[in-house]
Amino acid sequence: MRRVATIAEMRQCRDDWRRQGLSVALAPTMGFFHEGHLALMRRAKTLADRVVVSLFVNPLQFGPNEDLASYPRDLERDAALAAEAGVDALFIPTTSEMYGADFQTKVVVSGLSQGLCGASRPGHFDGVATVVTKLFHIVAPDVAVFGEKDFQQLAVLKRMAADLHFNLRIVSQPIVREQDGLAMSSRNSYLTAAERQSAVCLSQSLALAKQLARDESVSVAAIEQAVTEYIEKQPGFVVEYASVVDGESLRHADAVGQNSLLALAARVNGRVRLIDNAMLRRS
Amino acid sequence: MRRVATIAEMRQCRDDWRRQGLSVALAPTMGFFHEGHLALMRRAKTLADRVVVSLFVNPLQFGPNEDLASYPRDLERDAALAAEAGVDALFIPTTSEMYGADFQTKVVVSGLSQGLCGASRPGHFDGVATVVTKLFHIVAPDVAVFGEKDFQQLAVLKRMAADLHFNLRIVSQPIVREQDGLAMSSRNSYLTAAERQSAVCLSQSLALAKQLARDESVSVAAIEQAVTEYIEKQPGFVVEYASVVDGESLRHADAVGQNSLLALAARVNGRVRLIDNAMLRRS
Repeated sequence: MRRVATIAEMRQCRDDWRRQGLSVALAPTMGFFHEGHLALMRRAKTLADRVVVSLFVNPLQFGPNEDLASYPRDLERDAALAAEAGVDALFIPTTSEMYGADFQTKVVVSGLSQGLCGASRPGHFDGVATVVTKLFHIVAPDVAVFGEKDFQQLAVLKRMAADLHFNLRIVSQPIVREQDGLAMSSRNSYLTAAERQSAVCLSQSLALAKQLARDESVSVAAIEQAVTEYIEKQPGFVVEYASVVDGESLRHADAVGQNSLLALAARVNGRVRLIDNAMLRRS
Repeated sequence: MRRVATIAEMRQCRDDWRRQGLSVALAPTMGFFHEGHLALMRRAKTLADRVVVSLFVNPLQFGPNEDLASYPRDLERDAALAAEAGVDALFIPTTSEMYGADFQTKVVVSGLSQGLCGASRPGHFDGVATVVTKLFHIVAPDVAVFGEKDFQQLAVLKRMAADLHFNLRIVSQPIVREQDGLAMSSRNSYLTAAERQSAVCLSQSLALAKQLARDESVSVAAIEQAVTEYIEKQPGFVVEYASVVDGESLRHADAVGQNSLLALAARVNGRVRLIDNAMLRRS
């Protein structure tokens, strides 16, 4: 596996592959790989001849009071895992390589970026859309793979790719969970042992929601309330949102329908922010 | 010359050329061609194997009280002129082809879009940056050509291309002028015969500015004031701005320097808005 640090080298690598007629899949990440990332990489391998994984903790998608400085990093472990997963190039640019001194351009997806995570993380999705645009231009992939845990990011990026006519396909990969059901996340490393145990309440609340959704007499509001109460039974857990939305438009659903998603975010002792989601289906 | 109406057909055309190893130059326009446009096309011919001219009156770059509805159009004449200039493909998408129903993505170049034309046309450069991003993704040119009359557009797009790592070169083409010096513009067609005669004051004011700039004892403020007074001597002409700026950063200049530009916008009888600019050089 090649480690690529500069944009120029990444372009060169891509050009070589193009000349050889090889297709390329990109999986953008912020590193500190877990099974969720590895699933993205393995999926990418099935979609194209060559796999590029970008590893870049993107300052533009962090708010001023967020965890940019403390975001977990372990490059050597990440590089070993990526190589093992069959990645061809690990693109690890520096911040100054990605953002020059006079940088002032943003990509903004207005509607989908509002609400849900966007409400508590203003500017977050502008940062995501901007860095992904940059990565798309640098790597020029035929297909890009994103995880379904970041369901709003996925919706924003699909919208962006369609609106701006990016000439590539976006593929989503299902959430990978710990044995007890907790959705894998680099931020799980922030949890104390006790918090980690309690955090299973998130995925359990989704199971509860799925079960309630099977009964047509249970309203969306009742589902959302049950999920919130279930999570907030755990000391220190506060729900930021628990919403039934359409999976594409992210508009709040009046009733559980074809493409309904229960999406939730919770804060643990005001310190750690976790998200999770699941499709709901009427039986 | 091919007339291409859909994004899919434009992509197909580009793919065919790529397979043949041919390079592509793009000149984005809003049509109603004059010698300025034709100069862009001829320049494009010298830069690549194939030339695409896009003709799209982009609603996103017009304000609510601007001239979108009345913007001059003459497709048949334009197509004949483009063919004569050696253009290979004229891309003429409809508005619905370019902006789907759920469109909500914008490209925003924050600093350079403020001030000058951006002050009186809020959102204009977001519209320009967004549609040019779309055209770049659809046509995938190796090089794109823009006119220097729209100096702020040029600065915004160069910044955007660098910030987002577009894999192409931006080339600028000098202003083409009428015999009396008036910068060519599709909007000149809005002028009455009397206004058209008086409009020569803009380019004359630039000549005055160049002359004043040769004398180091004349301040930037004095140059700007002289230009404003010269134009406003014409009945009905009101200067919106007359500013000495750095040609790349567009920051206001304290003194005439290496890359100083006098840029101006004026309104004629409150109805027609004209812009012009010229480099200033100390002798």
